[in-house]
Amino acid sequence: RIDGDRLWRTLMDLATIGATPKGGLCRLALTDLDKEGRDLFVRWCEEAGCTVTVDEVGNIFARRPGRNPDRPAVCMGSHLDTQPTGGRFDGIYGVLAGLEVIRSFNDQGIETDAPIDLIVWTNEEGARFSPPMLGSGVAMGVFTLDHVLDIRDTDGVRLGDELARIGYKGEVPVTGHAMGAYFEAHIEQGPVLEAEDVEIGVVTGAQGQRWYEATVTGRESHAGPTPMRLRRDALAGAAVMMEAVEAIALEVGGDACSTIGRVQVHPDSRNVIPGRVWFTIDLRNPDPDALARMDALLRERLAAIADKRGLTLELTDFWAFPTTPFAPELVGHVRRSVERRGLSHRDIVSGAGHDAVYVARKVPTAMIFIPCENGLSHNEAENIKPEHAASGCAVLADAVLATAG
Amino acid sequence: RIDGDRLWRTLMDLATIGATPKGGLCRLALTDLDKEGRDLFVRWCEEAGCTVTVDEVGNIFARRPGRNPDRPAVCMGSHLDTQPTGGRFDGIYGVLAGLEVIRSFNDQGIETDAPIDLIVWTNEEGARFSPPMLGSGVAMGVFTLDHVLDIRDTDGVRLGDELARIGYKGEVPVTGHAMGAYFEAHIEQGPVLEAEDVEIGVVTGAQGQRWYEATVTGRESHAGPTPMRLRRDALAGAAVMMEAVEAIALEVGGDACSTIGRVQVHPDSRNVIPGRVWFTIDLRNPDPDALARMDALLRERLAAIADKRGLTLELTDFWAFPTTPFAPELVGHVRRSVERRGLSHRDIVSGAGHDAVYVARKVPTAMIFIPCENGLSHNEAENIKPEHAASGCAVLADAVLATAG
Ligand SMILES: NC(=O)NCCC(=O)O
Ligand SMILES: NC(=O)NCCC(=O)O
Repeated sequence: RIDGDRLWRTLMDLATIGATPKGGLCRLALTDLDKEGRDLFVRWCEEAGCTVTVDEVGNIFARRPGRNPDRPAVCMGSHLDTQPTGGRFDGIYGVLAGLEVIRSFNDQGIETDAPIDLIVWTNEEGARFSPPMLGSGVAMGVFTLDHVLDIRDTDGVRLGDELARIGYKGEVPVTGHAMGAYFEAHIEQGPVLEAEDVEIGVVTGAQGQRWYEATVTGRESHAGPTPMRLRRDALAGAAVMMEAVEAIALEVGGDACSTIGRVQVHPDSRNVIPGRVWFTIDLRNPDPDALARMDALLRERLAAIADKRGLTLELTDFWAFPTTPFAPELVGHVRRSVERRGLSHRDIVSGAGHDAVYVARKVPTAMIFIPCENGLSHNEAENIKPEHAASGCAVLADAVLATAG
Repeated sequence: RIDGDRLWRTLMDLATIGATPKGGLCRLALTDLDKEGRDLFVRWCEEAGCTVTVDEVGNIFARRPGRNPDRPAVCMGSHLDTQPTGGRFDGIYGVLAGLEVIRSFNDQGIETDAPIDLIVWTNEEGARFSPPMLGSGVAMGVFTLDHVLDIRDTDGVRLGDELARIGYKGEVPVTGHAMGAYFEAHIEQGPVLEAEDVEIGVVTGAQGQRWYEATVTGRESHAGPTPMRLRRDALAGAAVMMEAVEAIALEVGGDACSTIGRVQVHPDSRNVIPGRVWFTIDLRNPDPDALARMDALLRERLAAIADKRGLTLELTDFWAFPTTPFAPELVGHVRRSVERRGLSHRDIVSGAGHDAVYVARKVPTAMIFIPCENGLSHNEAENIKPEHAASGCAVLADAVLATAG
């Protein structure tokens, strides 16, 4: 039994920090607002009797002891950072559902054999510091600590400096934390569960992603006296490339997705034919072969467009992870919980990357999805139903209990 | 007779202020570097015996007296500000060719009946403060002084504040300056003269321009779990619009040009489907009917793309000027000079806007073009031949002399 009202109040309390006029959140990683959110979370955990530690990359661990201190912890967690125009639940729901599990175990005097750790991972969104999932990535040995501390935001500010500034550069060695299992509850961030009127998504894994950066170089010249036929317009070429990126996902079909999220035009003057355009590309597919086909099409088509227009294209691989299956045993605990509770459910593959994807490389991992309104996420209007929040939290409690003994 | 070597040295001296590593200039209007350039110019004019005054919008007037102080001045001029990645000659050539005319008149003891004014207009480029040609625009009553002083750059800094800060907010009423005629020498900024191996362009007028701002609004959502068919991707739509803008100029043909110089994507995060894209559009045509057709096509096609994709389009008129003919009598002075000097020449319509276009609304005006390397301008590689600089300057001297008596 968990307290759905308390969970909802806690969500709404945290949603006051970084609230935007449109009802969303702007609480970018390692800003003053992120610090404020982290501080409040730490206070809540300490009030719930947890011991809080912080590792070298700012990941927060709140421990509820078990009977057997030698067993590796059964972990829950997610992230507290948001997109620039993000919602109130992405990541935050998973963290606070974990807090509600601990609070309700306390209320009911439930003891577990293994200790329980509630984890907040640093910079999951990849919005301020790219790529995403940096805290879990370092913890799982995907990135080195030094590399991540050196990543800079678009203003040139270093991640490591911001970590120290807000007081979350901890002492605990980042790869030293023993995890026995990891559960992450999350909003679906897509339309599937809502469309099928299903309460819980039993997440069997996450689809693969490939991120790129493209730089198109042409020749700057005057917008007036330069005839169309003599132009090498980097932006006109980039626009056709952007259309091609969209077309690749439509053509490959199925669950294929492609997105261009950032564009920078140089020199960015109204009457100068752009000489250089930089943009990001995000390709996704749950089927590894189809993702490889998308990658090949991308390289081929963008090169052809550049060639035809006398432009130079530099296409660099920025980040990627393969399709990631979760641990059948833990997924089974989730499935048994929803069945026992009589919740409507379906298996689902995560369209987004989550810290769970990196954790799954070293630790048995599963995720629990709840529906979100209109499938909308990375949007200030992101919303969920309190009863779904409560159901997901109850399933999380069941799964943790089944694993921790 | 003018001194081509001195003109070239003067050009190279001014090109040290704001020099870029790639051999161009970055001397945006009303920055510290613009002040430095203006100060050097003013010193040169005073050394040449001119009286320098500054008007309320920062336009600089250097006067060489005539025998008849009651006659309105015969004026020469252009601008000293540059694009962010601009060249060493755009505008600057016209100003320093004027200075060389005054210096050589001094050397040869030439007196004129009318006074001669050499003018530097404020913020011609429209790069830092938009639209272009603001100084000449206020002087000719196209814009009000208050409106222009209130224009802000992309950092929100007010033009009027910058003018005061660099010490060029003058006392002379901006519309009070009596001009009897205006000649502007300029690099062509296009490929025509070079391609035809012609030394001087006799400029008969300038083509019309229409500038717009487009804002495309869709719906922000997550780049991963949002299926392609449910997206309202503002950037995917904007990319198709950008292609349509290019196609309009290609379709209308002739001298039609279209350019998108600036793009801003919101929220500008790699894994967020953009909810809003803003971009600028620049359409040009020497034929007023063809320009009107381009305008109609733009409205129709962009609206159709928005409609098809469930996006909202806001297309606003930002700035425009119609095809502008210059004064036949002054153009005749230019033509007679090139003929008498035996310079190869052709009539040409300016593809760019110039201060001369606004001045022509109130004052008889003509322009003289010289070729530029590869037709390249608004590019750090912009270049001209010293002998062309000297020829254009000699023609300017002839035309001024013929007009000033
Ligand atoms: N959950 C989430 O928004 N993760 C960010 C990484 C991604 O874009 O998939
Ligand atoms: N000459 C020049 O670059 N003028 C700026 C206005 C325009 O873009 O035509």
